[in-house]
Amino acid sequence: MHVHVNAAVSADGKLSTRRREQVRISGDEDFARVDRIRAENDAVLVGVGTVLADDPSLVRFDRDHRESVGKSGVPTRVVADSRARTPPDAAILAGDAPTTLLVSEAAPIDRLSALREASVSVVVAGTERVDLPCALAELESRGVADLMVEGGGELVFSLFADGLVDALTLYVGSLVLGGREAPTIADGEGFVERASFPELSLDGVERVDDGVVLQWTVDS
Amino acid sequence: MHVHVNAAVSADGKLSTRRREQVRISGDEDFARVDRIRAENDAVLVGVGTVLADDPSLVRFDRDHRESVGKSGVPTRVVADSRARTPPDAAILAGDAPTTLLVSEAAPIDRLSALREASVSVVVAGTERVDLPCALAELESRGVADLMVEGGGELVFSLFADGLVDALTLYVGSLVLGGREAPTIADGEGFVERASFPELSLDGVERVDDGVVLQWTVDS
Repeated sequence: MHVHVNAAVSADGKLSTRRREQVRISGDEDFARVDRIRAENDAVLVGVGTVLADDPSLVRFDRDHRESVGKSGVPTRVVADSRARTPPDAAILAGDAPTTLLVSEAAPIDRLSALREASVSVVVAGTERVDLPCALAELESRGVADLMVEGGGELVFSLFADGLVDALTLYVGSLVLGGREAPTIADGEGFVERASFPELSLDGVERVDDGVVLQWTVDS
Repeated sequence: MHVHVNAAVSADGKLSTRRREQVRISGDEDFARVDRIRAENDAVLVGVGTVLADDPSLVRFDRDHRESVGKSGVPTRVVADSRARTPPDAAILAGDAPTTLLVSEAAPIDRLSALREASVSVVVAGTERVDLPCALAELESRGVADLMVEGGGELVFSLFADGLVDALTLYVGSLVLGGREAPTIADGEGFVERASFPELSLDGVERVDDGVVLQWTVDS
């Protein structure tokens, strides 16, 4: 499976303010770029924190571009949601695209039943937290060869820590959000030892809107 | 006064690990670039957190470049240090360059006496915390027309909050540090309202070492 993390951050590396309110960081040209990346992927993954903070629908993608890259259907929406906290009326469960929840064994049965009634597919992996290598392997067995990840920072850090990220693309916007508690693209516990830092190769640098898109592949 | 913030951050926007241990993020080409920026400035400012974490000496600069831009002498080293916590044996107090401490009225007298014995100039501004507009005005009256700021994130956020930053340059390195508690270039409380976000203009994008240097001016 190929895993591609994409996000927009402020010049100081923040996904949003400390209140986790969504901020328009990029512009129309970048939104179109994101729609093309979604079109290239079989599924789009976000963490439940992002679902609770932003209520994204993740249904938009570039249909012409999807056809041109030879993908059929629509990208599946996936939520990493250890305890099944996705609200049954979340936008990510509405609309025409299918949705899969990655949960752990700690997810309450009644929540899972309610979500299954909303036609959500469920992958159970891990005891207390989602076992990401296992969950992504299950997604792959269900036909997800190309997975896009749109945050948030807790999920992305876990994916890096598990060595699951292949590519990282960031739109860096021309504004400052600040905040020692504002989310970044890789939060979590953080790496400490040099040997554990994921190393990247910078493949692309392109000015887009008022900012710049930086594109890396993750060295294996 | 012209205030230029310069720092090296990881791809995920961190200055160092959550343990605040210094990490080599850039390489020789970027170090030479930093030495040129220091040469262009009358003083180099850091926060006391950076002094306590990294013990920088800040004596290096590009002497040929300084001559070519018509500056004489060496850049003064300045520490924003509300309570005068800079250790008397800190590297920033040693060497041939002069050092100025920006403190508040809350700085203990005995610490100030010890530091004055180490030939440190002291600017007192503010009651509990350094009043940065006032302290920078005092620096300007002492001949600092061009001030470089090398972090950390608490100081830089305060400078942005006070509207004192004119330019921001970041070397973005090709590695991931992660950590919700790892320092970024603008920490502090963070901005919340759109109207308060400092807006920037991206002036330069240049590949340097394995990363990229992004150069912004702050819109006034």
